Amino acid sequence: MDILKLLKDSKSSDFSIRNLPFGIVEENGTRYVASRLGDYVIDIRSFVNLMGGMEDFNHIDDKVFHNDYLNDFIALGKSVTVPLRKAIQAKIEELRFSESIFKMIFSHIDQVKVCMPLKIGDYTDFYSSIEHATNVGKMFRDPNNPLLPNWLHMPIGYHGRASSIVLSGTDVHRPSGQFQVNEGEAPQFGPSRNLDIELEMAFVIGKENPLGQPIPIDKAEDYIFGMLTFNDWSARDIQRWEYVPLGPFLGKNFASTISPWVVTLEALEPFRVQGPEQKTAVLDYLKVEGAKNYDIGLEVDLICPDGAVTTICRSNFKYMYWNMCQQLAHHTVNGCNMRIGDLCASGTISGEAEDSFGSMMELAWKGTKPIKLSNGEERKFLLNGDAIDIRAYNVVDGFRVGFGPCCGKIV
Amino acid sequence: MDILKLLKDSKSSDFSIRNLPFGIVEENGTRYVASRLGDYVIDIRSFVNLMGGMEDFNHIDDKVFHNDYLNDFIALGKSVTVPLRKAIQAKIEELRFSESIFKMIFSHIDQVKVCMPLKIGDYTDFYSSIEHATNVGKMFRDPNNPLLPNWLHMPIGYHGRASSIVLSGTDVHRPSGQFQVNEGEAPQFGPSRNLDIELEMAFVIGKENPLGQPIPIDKAEDYIFGMLTFNDWSARDIQRWEYVPLGPFLGKNFASTISPWVVTLEALEPFRVQGPEQKTAVLDYLKVEGAKNYDIGLEVDLICPDGAVTTICRSNFKYMYWNMCQQLAHHTVNGCNMRIGDLCASGTISGEAEDSFGSMMELAWKGTKPIKLSNGEERKFLLNGDAIDIRAYNVVDGFRVGFGPCCGKIV
Repeated sequence: MDILKLLKDSKSSDFSIRNLPFGIVEENGTRYVASRLGDYVIDIRSFVNLMGGMEDFNHIDDKVFHNDYLNDFIALGKSVTVPLRKAIQAKIEELRFSESIFKMIFSHIDQVKVCMPLKIGDYTDFYSSIEHATNVGKMFRDPNNPLLPNWLHMPIGYHGRASSIVLSGTDVHRPSGQFQVNEGEAPQFGPSRNLDIELEMAFVIGKENPLGQPIPIDKAEDYIFGMLTFNDWSARDIQRWEYVPLGPFLGKNFASTISPWVVTLEALEPFRVQGPEQKTAVLDYLKVEGAKNYDIGLEVDLICPDGAVTTICRSNFKYMYWNMCQQLAHHTVNGCNMRIGDLCASGTISGEAEDSFGSMMELAWKGTKPIKLSNGEERKFLLNGDAIDIRAYNVVDGFRVGFGPCCGKIV
Repeated sequence: MDILKLLKDSKSSDFSIRNLPFGIVEENGTRYVASRLGDYVIDIRSFVNLMGGMEDFNHIDDKVFHNDYLNDFIALGKSVTVPLRKAIQAKIEELRFSESIFKMIFSHIDQVKVCMPLKIGDYTDFYSSIEHATNVGKMFRDPNNPLLPNWLHMPIGYHGRASSIVLSGTDVHRPSGQFQVNEGEAPQFGPSRNLDIELEMAFVIGKENPLGQPIPIDKAEDYIFGMLTFNDWSARDIQRWEYVPLGPFLGKNFASTISPWVVTLEALEPFRVQGPEQKTAVLDYLKVEGAKNYDIGLEVDLICPDGAVTTICRSNFKYMYWNMCQQLAHHTVNGCNMRIGDLCASGTISGEAEDSFGSMMELAWKGTKPIKLSNGEERKFLLNGDAIDIRAYNVVDGFRVGFGPCCGKIV
């Protein structure tokens, strides 16, 4: 492999030169901070040490790069990580790599183990797609008045469980729990019968605010390092029985799957678009100026035990009613402190079209319209052996910027 | 100070020889694992190194003791920490300390800074007092049918925010946020007008279960290292407007205060009592045998800016309807994994008596019966400058076992 061929080959992969995300890989028993180009990972420390013109970054402590997590790297701040990523991009485009230098910096993806990128302190899940909230309201509350009174006034969110966030590729155990089969009856206990997905994206906190000091909305982007794709697996039957009045708990915290590469906000910049118009005037702390949404195509594949693949959903991150800046300004307006590596997930991303709904509950409309699969089977919810993969990407100037797989199999 | 006098003096303090809790203190710029006896802290590493007969513990890595948090110490497991605590207890009771050895092991509390004891990964808040849940139901739902249908079937809980858990003594900023003054109106924004406390206790996870493997209820105590007192500050107006359908969020996550010393389950053993009889048969995974509650007296003081102190609540941890074993078995029954240092808080601990209610909302019954203070003032909710202190203790054979202060002032 030479660098020219790699640049070309990577163009149509999620990890073109315009992406250069960050992650953690393990090679020969050591974990390190890496970027990704096509099928190769880039050892950032070696890149800085071995390539000329990277002197601005030589002083960075080795421990930042030889690390089990990205947190210390992110903590360097965007004033370091943004120019570092740019310098790597420029150096690669100069194409000046001897074969021996190339080998010292680049490793084929098959030679490394891709690892959990972040030490996640806190994880928050929002509920920011108006189409999703409306669908849920229509199905379970009032079809004529599906949105709750608070929904249009703020990005509703709740705290999730950080310990059970797993990396793409990790099997998901079908959870057992209590559920009520018929209203008014005593609950039963057993494996969930309504195991579902939630198609989400999440942003990674890149800068901390002290407790008691809100992040103003016009500064919110400074606090966002990058993004991941996120599958918020949900056991609907468990959730339905438990969630009043304190919200989802065991219906959610058995597992959430993230994609391994953190795509920076800079890589997503070409896809910045205006979000949907907000129907109700928002309070001052939630007012944004300019385009704050991102046009990122989303696809969900369901893979049956026999290998049959069906794309069950095509959605887009740009549909979000509440954008990330509004989410972060709201989350901290009471003084709540963010820490580097914390995750804020979007909530299920549904669009208007029926095939853009981001959960099986919506796609199969509460079980009334089973999802048809490519092998002739149908699904209302997930069966054991089913796997789900989420893909997210867009293309700029012929270069694809994507998130790689975010997959899990039910066992 | 000699050891005999210290033993005597400490008897009536929260930290008698029967307690020996664990915490983290900083002395001369270094943090270390400590225990506490009266007004003195014990450097555990020095104790092990300098006292004869502690050879069983000499092999423990120095990093475990010279550490910013208790997590690595707890991770040694109860097979180490329980006999270590016992050995310290026995050695102290032998009274054989030369003056120089005493000085090397013991430091006066005024010479050290007491620090956050735990690196808390995840924090869960339960809602396990039937009196509290009933009071809330009477006030805000149906006085004749105050408990929701799920409440008697499982310990309802939700995820809280770990980043904003602060140590006793930390000031609490009054949060701002959205609240609805009159139903049907648009929300307003401003500082919370209904700032409240929640009198809680929390247990500390001492052993991990892998994701996908529930903790059976008869093993639950093995997973509980010890306990803390916990004030779950709550902005009722913010909470009321936001909590449907996903639960409390900004009404809670601006701050929660913990006491600094983790009192071990072994120290609380003399106070083990039978809990209240459960009115409804529970599912098998929640069935417990034997006494699983603890008789721990709880008092809440409100300290006015003028210094006037009023004990506004006298409750007891033994009132809990759902005990810690049931909480932990429920939390993990879906496979959710616990990590060392995670916290599970009880939820507001109210008793039957009107002065035993664990929140101001209940004590002042939704503002209809203002709380009378010792200086003639009244309170429905907290004013700026008010401070709250929670005390928790019991006495065995004349020795007091308590939790020390858990206080915070509103600024």
